[in-house]
Amino acid sequence: MNATVSWCGTMPLRAVDSTGRTTLFDTSAEFQGTDSASSPMEVVLEALASCSMMDVLSILRKKRRDIRSLVASVDAERAESHPKVFTSITIRYELSSSDCTPADLERAVALSMESYCSVAAMLRNGGCSISWSSTII
Amino acid sequence: MNATVSWCGTMPLRAVDSTGRTTLFDTSAEFQGTDSASSPMEVVLEALASCSMMDVLSILRKKRRDIRSLVASVDAERAESHPKVFTSITIRYELSSSDCTPADLERAVALSMESYCSVAAMLRNGGCSISWSSTII
Repeated sequence: MNATVSWCGTMPLRAVDSTGRTTLFDTSAEFQGTDSASSPMEVVLEALASCSMMDVLSILRKKRRDIRSLVASVDAERAESHPKVFTSITIRYELSSSDCTPADLERAVALSMESYCSVAAMLRNGGCSISWSSTII
Repeated sequence: MNATVSWCGTMPLRAVDSTGRTTLFDTSAEFQGTDSASSPMEVVLEALASCSMMDVLSILRKKRRDIRSLVASVDAERAESHPKVFTSITIRYELSSSDCTPADLERAVALSMESYCSVAAMLRNGGCSISWSSTII
């Protein structure tokens, strides 16, 4: 897997993956940014939720459960001193479904968090605690 | 720090940070995606390069060095079995500058990688080896 990130005189930074798709990164004016896009650490937090959500969608589809919408809210605490890593993260899932039970959803989220989600595994291996909860709405 | 990721019937997943800025995530058709945006792991790799690049830009600016453009190319290897974490990453910097020396750039990249870059610290703490190189062009 490879990618390229470029700065050519102005923010945001432009990241391009191996098939040409672009993702933007920015920072605050304090660090010469323009606040036009999320920061790298915000995007890592979002990548965690996205990686896990793709697992959860896949697992529920394999069980042929109805999925109307799925929302994940993530909160992170960071260390106070550099390099300011994430120390703890909480992820809360809310699923709208006509037939999915709380146990179905709990099982799918646990499978993702404990076995499949690459981003969760990397952050946890690095010492960040990750907790989760799930609700059917 | 917090964010929300939503799936409302179609890909891509839409991530929104605490100030409303959006980042998109997608996956391949094999996993019911539409390939319209980078995958979560691609974006983590890009976040690593972006986080580090913001450090490098800041350090070189503090030294009042001319910076015309800065490009970071990142390559990652992943584990073969789930959760398929990154096992090794290489990041190559190319700087266009009228007055920056190779030593200035090497020092800035090393400071980022070893002391400041939050994403690099988290990945390395998790067991991923990260190497880097830098060139003035």
